Amino acid sequence: MNLLKEERIDFIAGTPLKVIQSPNVFSFSIDAILLGRFVQVPIQKGNILDLCTGNGVIPLLLTTRTKASLVGVEIQSKLVDMARRTLTLNEIHNQVEIIEADLNYIPANIKKDFFDVVTCNPPYFETVTEEEKNKNIHLAIARHEILCSLEEVIRVCSSYVKQKGKVALVHRPERLTDIMTFMRAYRIEPKRIQFIHPKQGKEANMVLIEGIKDGKAGVVCLPPLVVYNESGEYRPEFSQVYEGK
Amino acid sequence: MNLLKEERIDFIAGTPLKVIQSPNVFSFSIDAILLGRFVQVPIQKGNILDLCTGNGVIPLLLTTRTKASLVGVEIQSKLVDMARRTLTLNEIHNQVEIIEADLNYIPANIKKDFFDVVTCNPPYFETVTEEEKNKNIHLAIARHEILCSLEEVIRVCSSYVKQKGKVALVHRPERLTDIMTFMRAYRIEPKRIQFIHPKQGKEANMVLIEGIKDGKAGVVCLPPLVVYNESGEYRPEFSQVYEGK
Repeated sequence: MNLLKEERIDFIAGTPLKVIQSPNVFSFSIDAILLGRFVQVPIQKGNILDLCTGNGVIPLLLTTRTKASLVGVEIQSKLVDMARRTLTLNEIHNQVEIIEADLNYIPANIKKDFFDVVTCNPPYFETVTEEEKNKNIHLAIARHEILCSLEEVIRVCSSYVKQKGKVALVHRPERLTDIMTFMRAYRIEPKRIQFIHPKQGKEANMVLIEGIKDGKAGVVCLPPLVVYNESGEYRPEFSQVYEGK
Repeated sequence: MNLLKEERIDFIAGTPLKVIQSPNVFSFSIDAILLGRFVQVPIQKGNILDLCTGNGVIPLLLTTRTKASLVGVEIQSKLVDMARRTLTLNEIHNQVEIIEADLNYIPANIKKDFFDVVTCNPPYFETVTEEEKNKNIHLAIARHEILCSLEEVIRVCSSYVKQKGKVALVHRPERLTDIMTFMRAYRIEPKRIQFIHPKQGKEANMVLIEGIKDGKAGVVCLPPLVVYNESGEYRPEFSQVYEGK
C-alpha cells in the first residue's frame, strides 16, 4: 500500500482494521467511532449510507457489525481517495462503496427513501474565519459548515432513509436544540440520545442521537459515557464501548 | 397548625422548611426540589413565578435562595389551601403569594413580560384513563395533561417571563424533543440541561432544562446526577445537590 506524504496508518481500537490518516487532511476521532458503535444496524442484510464519510472510518467499522451494503459519500476527492485505499488495505472489495459527491447533489443511482440506516458525523462549527479557510481548506471543510449546513445534513439524511429507517448523528451538545428541531421538521423523530463527558463532573462535549423516520414521539436518554479518568486514561467502561465489547 | 385528614408534615432536606403534604392530593417529590435547586435566580431582588405550584414547595424552597418576590399559581383549591397553610407554618408572610387560577386564565394583576424567572413542574403524562380520573381526580390533574398541555405550559411560561428572563422546567426525558421544539417555538432558547439517572448505568428518568427568552442558540449539557447507589441510598454527590450544599 502506497502512502502519500504525511499519511500514516492507524488501527481502530478493538478491531484488526487499519485506517489511512493524514493530520493535514483529516483524521478520524473518538466521535466517528462512537457513532459507529452507537447506531443500531441490521445484522444480516440491508443498506446503510454514511454522509460526510471522510476517510471512510464509519462504514469501515460497520463492516464488523453488519453484512449490509454500505455506501459512503464524501465531497473532498483527497478523502475519497484515502477512503478507497483504506478499503483496499483492509481487503474490503465489495461491501463498501465510496462515492465522491456533494451531499446536496448525490447522483441519482443512490436511491432516496431506500436506506435502512443513514449515519453522519458532520462538520460541527457554524462559522469559519478566512484565516482558518486559507490555512487548511481540507480541515476547514471537514470541521465547519462551509459546504453543508446542519439543516442540509438532516434534510438529506431524511430524504435517503426509508420510512421507519434510522438516522444517527454525532455532534456537539450545544447544537442539540437545532438537531432535535431539524430532525422533527424533516420527519426524523429522535428516539435515543447519549451524552459523552470528557471527565466525571464535566459538561458533555459530544452527543449521539438516533431517530426514526416517521417514528412515534418519545426519546430515551441512555446512561452517559465518561471518557477519561482523573489521570487522563480511558475509563474501563468507556474502552468497552469504544472497542465494541 | 391544623392539619386536615390524611395530611402530614415533611421537611425539605437541607433546610428547616416544613411542607404540608397529602398522599391523596399531592406530595412533592425529588423533581420539584431538584428544579428549585437547578434554576438560576436573582439573589437580592426580582420577581419569580411558579406555575403548577401544587403545595408551593418550589417557591418555598426558593425563599432560601433569593429575596425576590415569589408568586405560585395553582388550579386546585385544595392545593392552594395547603400551600398557603404551608407558608404560614414556615412564618413566610410577605415573600410568597399563592394564586388560585387556571394557567390559561391567570388574573390580569399578574403581569406579562414581567418575571425574571418562571419555573414549572408540570403534569408529566399526556393521556389519562377514565379509571385513573375516577380513582383520584386530584392526583390525576397533578400528573396528567388534563387541564394543561405541555405546549400550553411553555406558551404561558414564555408570556410571563420578561425578555432575557429564564424559564426552567423539570420533565421526563422522553418529552425532550417536545420541550425543545415548543421552547424554541415560543422564543425560549434552551441554555442549560441536566439529566437525572436513578442509578449508574440506567436511562435518565428526569430532565431539568432552563432557557432564556430571546436568548442566543446554544445549550450546555451539565454533568448528570445519579440518585441512588447500589444499595438504594442517596449517593453523596446527589445529597449535596439535593440539600443545596
